[in-house]
Amino acid sequence: MWVVENAAHGNRAYCTLNEGLGAVLRYGAFGDEVYERLRWMRDRLAPALARAIELHGPVDLRTLLAQALQMGDEGHNRNRAGTSLLIRELAPALVRANADRERIAEVLAFLHANDHFFLNLTMPAGKCALDAAAEQSGSSLVTVMARNGTEFGIRLSGTGDRWFTAPAPRVDGLYLPGYGPDDAAPDIGDSAITETAGYGGFAMATAPAIVQFVGGSPALAVETTERMRRITLAESPVYQIPSLSFRGTPTGIDVLRVVETGIVPAINTGIAHRLPGIGMVGAGLVTPPLACFRDAARALAETLEGEDDAR
Amino acid sequence: MWVVENAAHGNRAYCTLNEGLGAVLRYGAFGDEVYERLRWMRDRLAPALARAIELHGPVDLRTLLAQALQMGDEGHNRNRAGTSLLIRELAPALVRANADRERIAEVLAFLHANDHFFLNLTMPAGKCALDAAAEQSGSSLVTVMARNGTEFGIRLSGTGDRWFTAPAPRVDGLYLPGYGPDDAAPDIGDSAITETAGYGGFAMATAPAIVQFVGGSPALAVETTERMRRITLAESPVYQIPSLSFRGTPTGIDVLRVVETGIVPAINTGIAHRLPGIGMVGAGLVTPPLACFRDAARALAETLEGEDDAR
Repeated sequence: MWVVENAAHGNRAYCTLNEGLGAVLRYGAFGDEVYERLRWMRDRLAPALARAIELHGPVDLRTLLAQALQMGDEGHNRNRAGTSLLIRELAPALVRANADRERIAEVLAFLHANDHFFLNLTMPAGKCALDAAAEQSGSSLVTVMARNGTEFGIRLSGTGDRWFTAPAPRVDGLYLPGYGPDDAAPDIGDSAITETAGYGGFAMATAPAIVQFVGGSPALAVETTERMRRITLAESPVYQIPSLSFRGTPTGIDVLRVVETGIVPAINTGIAHRLPGIGMVGAGLVTPPLACFRDAARALAETLEGEDDAR
Repeated sequence: MWVVENAAHGNRAYCTLNEGLGAVLRYGAFGDEVYERLRWMRDRLAPALARAIELHGPVDLRTLLAQALQMGDEGHNRNRAGTSLLIRELAPALVRANADRERIAEVLAFLHANDHFFLNLTMPAGKCALDAAAEQSGSSLVTVMARNGTEFGIRLSGTGDRWFTAPAPRVDGLYLPGYGPDDAAPDIGDSAITETAGYGGFAMATAPAIVQFVGGSPALAVETTERMRRITLAESPVYQIPSLSFRGTPTGIDVLRVVETGIVPAINTGIAHRLPGIGMVGAGLVTPPLACFRDAARALAETLEGEDDAR
């Protein structure tokens, strides 16, 4: 498990190690292939990585992600650069901290074969950043977007731990060989924390090559990032897009701007099979339901009215 | 030394291992720091890499470079992605093929600290591609651009091993701390083989972050690639630019188009100190002298007239 800490605020987030694509537990796959990989990760990968991290010291995720966003990743469905940067950052310590060369080589080969390995660091990095902004009275900042295959839900900073939900939408995407839209479950997973934190779909302009994985065109990628500027509160001073003259990624979704404009957050995501046991079958673009943003804005307003009454 | 082979044509090119930036032999630096690094490279790095390559087998440079160009490298002055991809490609074999873990870790740390390591593979890759196109009767293809700090010289496919030269220009660029234009030697080095092969300056559009290293703006980077389409014969089917809807990089400089349009090839390059012993002091953009292209075109015409006379 990764432990990610917000150095400024002290809060932590946690994430499993990424198994890869296809038949993986996090997309609902099970069976011998899945269990065998998980056992190898538990027995071989995790202890080797833990020793490497202990020797290396904390990895500066913000710097790695900032670099990766300048190398064609958007930090959600394209993580080839981030994974590459993590490998080269940890490799010397991995070698120094582990005695068994064959195991080190196995670990390096696994990381090399899994371009999504860095995803399970971008997600808790976003969670860490957003948790620090949670539960601020009156704040219209969206602090969580998550889906469970049935409902799409959000939380606002100003409404605490309340969920505002609506039916989970379908994903419009590209499929792995042998699968198609009829196999797809509705939108699922908590990876949309990356978009909530200002990258992923919000940073698509910096990752035009991602359209080969999630569909769309390079022009759509740029248009998507620009559209997200209309519903966000700021531009990241750290996560920059070179092709847009180094402008920061649109960061901090304002539920009021979503409701005013009718523009919903753009999410890139993986697609799970609708039946248990099979796993990931594709990736694509999601249009979240506007209803939960409307409900959240209304609840925020009621909260403020309540406070006014109390004064 | 790297040995790079053109698998389709069997010809080879060779290159040293990249030392890094700053005080390095290839930019004319000398002294203990330089010698010590070179001795370490000879005694520790090179044997370890050689064993890794022997175990791994040939590295597919075309695939690595194609990926790197989709990750914000242009393959001449920005090679962070290529270096990262090479590290992760070779790391498992490096660990398996070498017994001494401390040496493996040293090698991985050196590669991690030198984002230009992949440059010394993109150069011979370009040389290999272009040598296969050399010495074709009547061809107006530019097969070499090189500079020696005094002269800028080119060769054409249709004029064999003749050099056409003009005074080497100044480089317009950014300098390492403590240096400025007064310290700079005129344009020097054979790295412009990358532009001759269709990447480097010709692929700047895919590497907008490079402007922080060589100067200019992201808009200039795109404009440069588009301008190069007017003097080239084709678009690469392999080296693609995602942000330009995956169009290929402009490839194959036609000396006739250079002379007709007056547009000279765009080159990104490092800047050497004008005095021996110091090394690299910056990086920037070069505008080659049109005169050598004019002379080459005239000589090509004379060659063809000679052939006509002979018929």
